[in-house]
Amino acid sequence: MENKELKVTARCPIRTTSDLLSGKWKLLILYQLAPKALRPSQLKRLIPDISEKMLNQELKTLCDSGLVVRYNYGEVPPKVHYELSAIGYKTMPIIAEMQSFAMAYEEEIKTN
Amino acid sequence: MENKELKVTARCPIRTTSDLLSGKWKLLILYQLAPKALRPSQLKRLIPDISEKMLNQELKTLCDSGLVVRYNYGEVPPKVHYELSAIGYKTMPIIAEMQSFAMAYEEEIKTN
Repeated sequence: MENKELKVTARCPIRTTSDLLSGKWKLLILYQLAPKALRPSQLKRLIPDISEKMLNQELKTLCDSGLVVRYNYGEVPPKVHYELSAIGYKTMPIIAEMQSFAMAYEEEIKTN
Repeated sequence: MENKELKVTARCPIRTTSDLLSGKWKLLILYQLAPKALRPSQLKRLIPDISEKMLNQELKTLCDSGLVVRYNYGEVPPKVHYELSAIGYKTMPIIAEMQSFAMAYEEEIKTN
């Protein structure tokens, strides 16, 4: 007999997305890249408490998973910027829901 | 002069929500509790690869942050169940967006 309840196993959409966006920084980076492409130094300025090492590491992971695209101007000294890919842009509705949830949550805490 | 760009600092809605839902398990637990209240053993069955220790730890964190409510029947031996709070239920749109993102992402990977 088949179990009709949906079990949450290694292959599940919630987990796919959690894994892609895991950690403290990826969502913040995606959010900052949404309005326009940015150079690493601009990103660092917008997310002041990320270390340079962590920023580079997270950008690499985001590029590897295809959410962000690295653009190299081919100049010396090297000049690069990062931008959202089409699929990276599709994380924006998640972020929007997270923002409205945070507002509802803070309202809830205040009134309790 | 005020900086018009939104900096992402410690107090930011994306981070508030990320922190509340951090880690591998909280979203999965919330998702499983959405249709109905569940006992710990039922949750364990629906999320087979979580350890009992981790499940209890995550449930405690979710209760502490007010997303989940622990209901104690006051019986001996102790019988409890967990259910979503009203604010916990408001995480569902985030999960729905994560699910549709995962589907778009897997489609994208397949076609590239």
